[in-house]
Amino acid sequence: MEKVKCVIYGVGAIGRMLSKALLEKDGFEIVGAVDVDPNKVGKDLGEVLGLNRKLGVVISKDADKVLEETKPNVVFHMTSSFLSKVFDQLMGIVKHGVNVVSSCEELSYPYISNFKLALELDKAAKKHGATILGTGINPGFLMDTLVITLTSPCLKINSIKVTRQMNASTRRGPFQKKIGAGLSVEEFENKIKSGIISGHVGLEQSISLIADALKVKLDKIVVEPVKPVISDKYVKTDFVEVNPGMVAGLNQTARGIVSDRDFITLIFTAYVGAPEEYDAIDIDGIPEIHQRISPCVHGDWGTISMLINMAPKAIESPPGLLTMKDITVPHCVLSDVREYLKH
Amino acid sequence: MEKVKCVIYGVGAIGRMLSKALLEKDGFEIVGAVDVDPNKVGKDLGEVLGLNRKLGVVISKDADKVLEETKPNVVFHMTSSFLSKVFDQLMGIVKHGVNVVSSCEELSYPYISNFKLALELDKAAKKHGATILGTGINPGFLMDTLVITLTSPCLKINSIKVTRQMNASTRRGPFQKKIGAGLSVEEFENKIKSGIISGHVGLEQSISLIADALKVKLDKIVVEPVKPVISDKYVKTDFVEVNPGMVAGLNQTARGIVSDRDFITLIFTAYVGAPEEYDAIDIDGIPEIHQRISPCVHGDWGTISMLINMAPKAIESPPGLLTMKDITVPHCVLSDVREYLKH
Repeated sequence: MEKVKCVIYGVGAIGRMLSKALLEKDGFEIVGAVDVDPNKVGKDLGEVLGLNRKLGVVISKDADKVLEETKPNVVFHMTSSFLSKVFDQLMGIVKHGVNVVSSCEELSYPYISNFKLALELDKAAKKHGATILGTGINPGFLMDTLVITLTSPCLKINSIKVTRQMNASTRRGPFQKKIGAGLSVEEFENKIKSGIISGHVGLEQSISLIADALKVKLDKIVVEPVKPVISDKYVKTDFVEVNPGMVAGLNQTARGIVSDRDFITLIFTAYVGAPEEYDAIDIDGIPEIHQRISPCVHGDWGTISMLINMAPKAIESPPGLLTMKDITVPHCVLSDVREYLKH
Repeated sequence: MEKVKCVIYGVGAIGRMLSKALLEKDGFEIVGAVDVDPNKVGKDLGEVLGLNRKLGVVISKDADKVLEETKPNVVFHMTSSFLSKVFDQLMGIVKHGVNVVSSCEELSYPYISNFKLALELDKAAKKHGATILGTGINPGFLMDTLVITLTSPCLKINSIKVTRQMNASTRRGPFQKKIGAGLSVEEFENKIKSGIISGHVGLEQSISLIADALKVKLDKIVVEPVKPVISDKYVKTDFVEVNPGMVAGLNQTARGIVSDRDFITLIFTAYVGAPEEYDAIDIDGIPEIHQRISPCVHGDWGTISMLINMAPKAIESPPGLLTMKDITVPHCVLSDVREYLKH
């Protein structure tokens, strides 16, 4: 069986986790790796992954050269949340006619992020016969694709409410820092002002993706300012310590509005010491649908799985800049289930 | 805006419910109706729906004539659960080059129901440029399409368990009878033997659809015999009365097996007086996913919504005999959300 030849573009935390996961999948082969970090360039990917063996894949900062030499079927692109920052990278990839699956949050619905750049990407992708798909666990699945899918048995919909509540205690240290856990309220607000804490990127994109799929014309999307979640108890994790009155994490709400009513409401909450964690979708319609995933889907595992599982979709789909609503019913890509059953 | 021209094929309980729902949708127009029931043939559809007005659509038993004269974009086909019974009807529809969305349970994964008939349907559909899609709430969504979708954030899957537990007390009288509510155990077993109670049709199809989407080769599918659920209390509904020790409903389990292990398990339970009702999906994998819809999605509303919402997919998709895994991400088709918000 021929393998899917992959290039890792961005060997950060997610890129390394994804690389390790790919090594355990029969159907995929890593043929190249790109990163600009001087500490990584020139090293073998196996070394950077902390393996005891070389993979024969040397990390290069020259994406053109890597793509030219390896001719991959797909690039896993994981460098930034923002479309303007990844635009040149993506244009550089598709000009080789290579498909891209990217974790860039703003790419999950690029037409709302930057309409002009999105059109340019679509045009370039079509010209070179490549597919670009932004995906991930959120945005990309829990607060959009799954919501869209769950509207299938509905005849009418009055409103949609989606909540992701994460207990950050069980997550990586950098994630806990990113949501402001352990700060005073003043420190939190200063970090918001200076942009050091920007909150979750993707709520606007998720709302737009749902609205587009349902062909609903929203009057506007309101993304409320990020709010701190103040701890009412003492919480200690492996990375931070939070006293009562200090910040445990953050809360964000975004609303897609039609005729002065909230048609789509997304609520994202992540804090250390959360008593429960879940992903909930509530559709007020005919019939009503109340869905809950508990505990909530693990963000990092979910994101790398979404990227890997959508790679065959990007390869099979027609060229262009696609979003998750454009692909056929998404699913896990198992290399060989018999392998898993051995464990 | 041009409307989707529809023909109703089968004006039974589901056909009537779907027709009424279509009349409230801006985007659809009923242009014809087919049924063989002498009590319906020759009558205006509005009359059979119990409306106070005629719709100008006379129910005919001559499907060819209706399709020839009305040239619909799609036929909503709702006549039987079994592929062998609907085969000629479907062949008759597609030879007109007309797309079909059907509630036929065995059509949700026809390749396991009757491989030969499925191939013939696929061939005829492709020849005439028509799409055939079997769908519904179950099979069609809750125990297959939604399960497939929920595997998206998984890197590995050890096993999948899906449970639909319905409280039949809130359902139609014919449904309560169909599941044996109110019978003695002996009566129930006699009706099973004589085929009067056949249980839920579709578990084998749902398992096959999941396995096909995940590209898992099952060693076998075991559909266990239908079992009665014995009531431990007195239950009275608008249609039946159940004393302790009598049958309240039924229970069915089907398993898709790989290497002597249950990889996919589907459990369908429906009985009057059930203390809770829900649709649950549990994926043992990396990450684990535990999902629950509570209360469970209403079967009749869900089925007519699935049929209506998948009509545009059947129209847009390439010709052939498709299954739910072949279409782009499914969703509700709203005519105009502003209309709903008025209520």
